[in-house]
Amino acid sequence: MLRSSLTSAAAMSRNLVLTGTFIHTPSKTKLEVLTNTAVFVENGVITSIMPATSSLPSTHHHIASPEGSFFFPGFIDTHIHASQYPNSGIFGTSTLLDWLKKYTFPLERSLADPVKARQVYSRVLQRTLANGTTTASYFATIDVDTTNLLADLALETGQRAFIGRNCMDQESPADYVDPTPEASVERTQRVVEHCRKIDPEGKLIRPIVTPRFAPTCSAKSLRGLGDLAEKEDLHIQTHLSENKPECEWVAQLFEGSKSYAHVYDDAKLLTPKTVLAHVVHVSDEEVKLLAERKSGVAHCPVSNNALGSGCCGVKRLMRAGVKVGLGTDVSGGYSCSVLENVRQATLVSSLVALQDGSKGEEEKLTFIEALWLATRGGAEVMGLEDKVGGFEVGKEFDAQLVGLGTVEGKVKDSAVDVFGWEDWEEKTAKWVYRGDERNTLKVWVAGREVYSK
Amino acid sequence: MLRSSLTSAAAMSRNLVLTGTFIHTPSKTKLEVLTNTAVFVENGVITSIMPATSSLPSTHHHIASPEGSFFFPGFIDTHIHASQYPNSGIFGTSTLLDWLKKYTFPLERSLADPVKARQVYSRVLQRTLANGTTTASYFATIDVDTTNLLADLALETGQRAFIGRNCMDQESPADYVDPTPEASVERTQRVVEHCRKIDPEGKLIRPIVTPRFAPTCSAKSLRGLGDLAEKEDLHIQTHLSENKPECEWVAQLFEGSKSYAHVYDDAKLLTPKTVLAHVVHVSDEEVKLLAERKSGVAHCPVSNNALGSGCCGVKRLMRAGVKVGLGTDVSGGYSCSVLENVRQATLVSSLVALQDGSKGEEEKLTFIEALWLATRGGAEVMGLEDKVGGFEVGKEFDAQLVGLGTVEGKVKDSAVDVFGWEDWEEKTAKWVYRGDERNTLKVWVAGREVYSK
Repeated sequence: MLRSSLTSAAAMSRNLVLTGTFIHTPSKTKLEVLTNTAVFVENGVITSIMPATSSLPSTHHHIASPEGSFFFPGFIDTHIHASQYPNSGIFGTSTLLDWLKKYTFPLERSLADPVKARQVYSRVLQRTLANGTTTASYFATIDVDTTNLLADLALETGQRAFIGRNCMDQESPADYVDPTPEASVERTQRVVEHCRKIDPEGKLIRPIVTPRFAPTCSAKSLRGLGDLAEKEDLHIQTHLSENKPECEWVAQLFEGSKSYAHVYDDAKLLTPKTVLAHVVHVSDEEVKLLAERKSGVAHCPVSNNALGSGCCGVKRLMRAGVKVGLGTDVSGGYSCSVLENVRQATLVSSLVALQDGSKGEEEKLTFIEALWLATRGGAEVMGLEDKVGGFEVGKEFDAQLVGLGTVEGKVKDSAVDVFGWEDWEEKTAKWVYRGDERNTLKVWVAGREVYSK
Repeated sequence: MLRSSLTSAAAMSRNLVLTGTFIHTPSKTKLEVLTNTAVFVENGVITSIMPATSSLPSTHHHIASPEGSFFFPGFIDTHIHASQYPNSGIFGTSTLLDWLKKYTFPLERSLADPVKARQVYSRVLQRTLANGTTTASYFATIDVDTTNLLADLALETGQRAFIGRNCMDQESPADYVDPTPEASVERTQRVVEHCRKIDPEGKLIRPIVTPRFAPTCSAKSLRGLGDLAEKEDLHIQTHLSENKPECEWVAQLFEGSKSYAHVYDDAKLLTPKTVLAHVVHVSDEEVKLLAERKSGVAHCPVSNNALGSGCCGVKRLMRAGVKVGLGTDVSGGYSCSVLENVRQATLVSSLVALQDGSKGEEEKLTFIEALWLATRGGAEVMGLEDKVGGFEVGKEFDAQLVGLGTVEGKVKDSAVDVFGWEDWEEKTAKWVYRGDERNTLKVWVAGREVYSK
């Protein structure tokens, strides 16, 4: 299913014209449906959008959406642990801290084996592409060589990827820990260098500084990583306030900091290029700090539900001006589908609306807003808002072709049944609530076809 | 995919021996895995369970589970609106009462057209069987003839089904209402008679008295339906305390009743054969009443999340001795998969555990308990606990063959990836959290094969 890297140059330079129905979210509240439209792509970039006519230039390879299908922007997964994928669906009734010790650390450690790492990372790339994820921000493991292997494999498959080596130099298993704060920084530098070597312009692959989370990072390592990110102008990702025992633990470990968010701020780790996963239990003061620093949040509703972490009130974050995208958080999240997180983001928001102290209906995300989070919201969080997230001239063509099932079709081919009377908005809703990877027929990144069902 | 009714007698009388791995939940907390086992089925009933040997009797048709697959009891959907299926996934940000008016009543009314009804009901039966549902308790519409058509179609496909005509004689649209309380009763009688005509012993098809919910039923119609159920020893299904505005509405409409649950009790509608859907917002006194009456609850977590109804604390109900099963509640629930409800039942229970006044960890459902609810719990709720829900001699063979994907397989064929190191409990967990209808390979009801992928 995945093209080899040998064809990538040819595929990327190819001129395309795609015709049919295009659906995207120009703003948080608007689902725009462009029917009978032609999108021209040259060198991976959209050069023109116009009504489709019968005469198309022979210089462009023509791809038409079949009847009932539509093009949609590729999904952006702002938080996924590639190394944890084999544990997807296994967590019992654990909460975060038990789960890390029992299931997660042993698996991550085992991926220092390059054979196992190749098997797991290849599968994650296949799976996420098949689910329409065109950009992913990955946590790998503490191991440098296999983290670099993840970067190589991502480049080969053509996914847009941020590659992070997990930094952890305290409160970790004796056999799965960086020996010193300096080692955390130096090993991260080696991953940065590798990513820059294989993709010098960062067209697809970019390194991302990845302190695992405050409890497993000494203040010295956090500061070292903050300095590195500043010096090299790097993206940063970590976790913030996922569950309550974790927050209490951080308060004990970092008594000198004003709050959990301030632990990172004190280390210069809150920047416009920072992605903070979860952010479930935060004070108004912390929310204000994130907005001031222009840092982004990876909202991970499936994971938060699965680990019983709590319900993140994303509308509260958005009202305060904080950037928000969606993250699958595999394998705290059991699904590598961003679409599943779109769906559950709406469900969780309904529960937030019932909570004491909430603003009721104002807390609810429509499926349109959730699709916005999965595309443009994620693009903002990853600093890619000028490049991807929607269909506009000048943006790169990162997209998926979505086909829906019909009431006459085989049940095994699609969970969505279209009866024929639905309008495009209703069809899109059916895709959001019933769709899965079976409905993603093809996927492109920067104009290159990277998956075909 | 569905066998015609012509073969049903032959298929039901056939003797089977099934060999391989059998997994079920003998108790709420136990997942039993029987490997290398042979189950003998004669006339639809399990006659013997023993270690599989190489010599199998030639009198029995032999079905072996392929490597890595297993037999699991069929699912029991204790609450599903067959007529609402075409709207699955469409509800916007509505809550219950708006949603009924805007989406549900118009669709239900349109199904008085037998052509449309046949299309919709056939698809629902295909879909639910493909998802491993061997027993379903259906709400149809207020129309007698097409409700009877649903019974005919269910019998033909071989699903075990309870068939309910919706009773509503007040607070309903002018063109979708029973004209009098007497009409509600008389029309219900006609469905009862039809079901008894086509399946005199109620082997597969049984009628179920179905007052929609208290607001749309006059006290007189409720009482008439209670009398009918008592006289004819019938099952009963309705809704109870799904969301807060509904509860307030009932309190206004039925000022003379002590509580919402008492509205039904006052009409003799709380019996050991009663299924109450949702039961999200109930007092301790109401819970005690349900336990005393031995009435059952259809827990519908997907629907409750989708419509923002709230989180039902099922462990609280179970601690009080109330029978509980799972319901998809299509199309308040967007999915017709009981497995999706198993998954979300565990997620919702984690959120219940975080609520003020909860018993914390005690509120959490493990995936094993949730599978128990989907099989034996549902059987208890439907009064079928002696017939179905697990693998024991004397029970009918209602089962599904579950196959999981592997890390080497095509991503589109299964969302589950087995890496090879997982034990059976972990494989079952992966099925629960990542599986879907693609993993249900075959389905049997009373020993008859009713679906094959």
